[in-house]
Amino acid sequence: MPVGTRGAVKAVLNESLEAIGAEIILGNTYHLHLRPGDDLIARRGGLHRFMGWDRPILTDSGGYQVFSLARMCRITDEGARFQSHLDGTEYMLTPEKAADIQAQLGSDIAMVLDECPPWPAEEGAVRGAVERSARWAARARARYLSIKDAGAAGVLATNPGQAQFGIVQGGTFQHLRRESVDRTIVGGFEGYAIGGLSVGEPAEAMYATLDGTVDLLPDAQPRYLMGVGMPDDLVEAVYRGVDMFDCVLPTRNARNGQVFVKTGLLNIKNARYAEDDRPLDPDCSCPVCRRYSRAYLRHLFTAGEMTAAALNTLHNLHFYLDTMRRIREAIVFGTFGSFRQEFLQTFSRTLIKD
Amino acid sequence: MPVGTRGAVKAVLNESLEAIGAEIILGNTYHLHLRPGDDLIARRGGLHRFMGWDRPILTDSGGYQVFSLARMCRITDEGARFQSHLDGTEYMLTPEKAADIQAQLGSDIAMVLDECPPWPAEEGAVRGAVERSARWAARARARYLSIKDAGAAGVLATNPGQAQFGIVQGGTFQHLRRESVDRTIVGGFEGYAIGGLSVGEPAEAMYATLDGTVDLLPDAQPRYLMGVGMPDDLVEAVYRGVDMFDCVLPTRNARNGQVFVKTGLLNIKNARYAEDDRPLDPDCSCPVCRRYSRAYLRHLFTAGEMTAAALNTLHNLHFYLDTMRRIREAIVFGTFGSFRQEFLQTFSRTLIKD
Repeated sequence: MPVGTRGAVKAVLNESLEAIGAEIILGNTYHLHLRPGDDLIARRGGLHRFMGWDRPILTDSGGYQVFSLARMCRITDEGARFQSHLDGTEYMLTPEKAADIQAQLGSDIAMVLDECPPWPAEEGAVRGAVERSARWAARARARYLSIKDAGAAGVLATNPGQAQFGIVQGGTFQHLRRESVDRTIVGGFEGYAIGGLSVGEPAEAMYATLDGTVDLLPDAQPRYLMGVGMPDDLVEAVYRGVDMFDCVLPTRNARNGQVFVKTGLLNIKNARYAEDDRPLDPDCSCPVCRRYSRAYLRHLFTAGEMTAAALNTLHNLHFYLDTMRRIREAIVFGTFGSFRQEFLQTFSRTLIKD
Repeated sequence: MPVGTRGAVKAVLNESLEAIGAEIILGNTYHLHLRPGDDLIARRGGLHRFMGWDRPILTDSGGYQVFSLARMCRITDEGARFQSHLDGTEYMLTPEKAADIQAQLGSDIAMVLDECPPWPAEEGAVRGAVERSARWAARARARYLSIKDAGAAGVLATNPGQAQFGIVQGGTFQHLRRESVDRTIVGGFEGYAIGGLSVGEPAEAMYATLDGTVDLLPDAQPRYLMGVGMPDDLVEAVYRGVDMFDCVLPTRNARNGQVFVKTGLLNIKNARYAEDDRPLDPDCSCPVCRRYSRAYLRHLFTAGEMTAAALNTLHNLHFYLDTMRRIREAIVFGTFGSFRQEFLQTFSRTLIKD
């Protein structure tokens, strides 16, 4: 899922997202709650109508941004009290409030509020987060069901078909992951996310945690690995049973001039590309590679033209979406094993030098 | 002609320009000469191939930016010596050099180097600029013809079909305009531009100058009014016989949140649009008005999203291109008189308040 933080995927138009086959995007509850406000968006008919996007949208709970971006955040069992990073206004985000905001935004998939401990963290702190996240998940589910059933005062739900996903925590502690799964799936959510990964732990620790977690989740519901990741992470996580991802890497790196190609990363600022007439990736079929050279893209970036961000973002998102398409195709044709091997042999997380 | 200063129309992709019917764009010789350099662009096959744009391109001579943007500019009969605004490097722009650079860029229409006096200016200064511009035009034409005929050492001409336009100066002095026309048309250029207008003089002075100048130009060649202008200026100038325009107003205003609508200008930052579900212009058929509301566009602008600039620019360029389409249509159907009257009655240069 491309990340559309504030009701727009940065630097690219919806038309372009559709053209490269984006099927679902993510919106950030924290940002939209602060500005322009979910009340205003609900009066416009919900986030889909507001932003002119009629394909699915997933919204996060806002918790991650509250913990990482807001000022003066104080977490209690009730929820998180914080000040807006924009103007210092004080807000309270509870499991119920996170459900209310997302009901107003009318996303197709809403996430429960959870507590995501930093990495590394002591077992006691991780256990505390697992338990609090479980209590919050139960409250969020109750609120979600009551809004669906009878509505709630002051809440203008804009999407009757909204689903809600629970989130499993537990850090890299296998027994806490198991406990978190047990205490989350009782909620009967429409899908389950694996949270608390990609927060600084080594890749092997993430893969080991997935190995010990994914198979405990219900087969029939989608599994979503939050905030992941590098292209090889996607392949490795699908191998372990994950279905969905979101990550700012393709969009953020693009704005910094880093583009993804078959063999690794390419820094378009590099002087070596000043007279390079090749596309970013000669094997890529995206609208950018079909039309523009590295030399031109380097010029745009060096000159500070906004279209540099647009073109790099379009290419990177296409790379990610295309990787997922190739994964799905390999699964359908029963060739995922060899696809995985070849992908990991070809792609490396280093800067390419050709 | 949308202005694509540095090999890109700011904030919008070529694909979008094509979609809204841009038939020709303008590139700035000064900017491209400095970065990435016309030598580099020539080695790429010219500006069309470099920027992935296969419709026509007009390039200016670079003079206007040298006089207004560069540091330490000293003009002599030989040309203009100046320092780059980017890094202080010293350059010399002569009529021959301006022709050489544009031959390397390979634009479809090249402009001669001229001297454009500020407004207001004494008659003596304007006369001096007319005479120098005439001498420079003759040198530029000679250089252009010799490149076409036999090439020139160190010049990699990339467009054998390039045309060259002369430029008429003379400020608002009718007799100097006449003299400038006489001394310019002897060059036998493929088209003629009217320069030195829209530099601060009142609209009436510009229209009066056009009245006294346009009819002196050869009937069979296109007439290009440089750096103009507001939408009503286009209508009034076409009425006086002008065929072509370039202006940064639609693109620059868009990036500042000012959009053009049928009745005037709309400032999308205004709080009155926070909950306005209407498109920018209910009668507009552009991709922005078909999909997005004022409320959403205001949100994007307020949040500082890059796509705000992209969408506002797309709308404004469509407004300008559509105005020109409607003008052409009215001329073909013999209804330009009533079109002009209606346009001037409907459009005003003030901020709309609905």
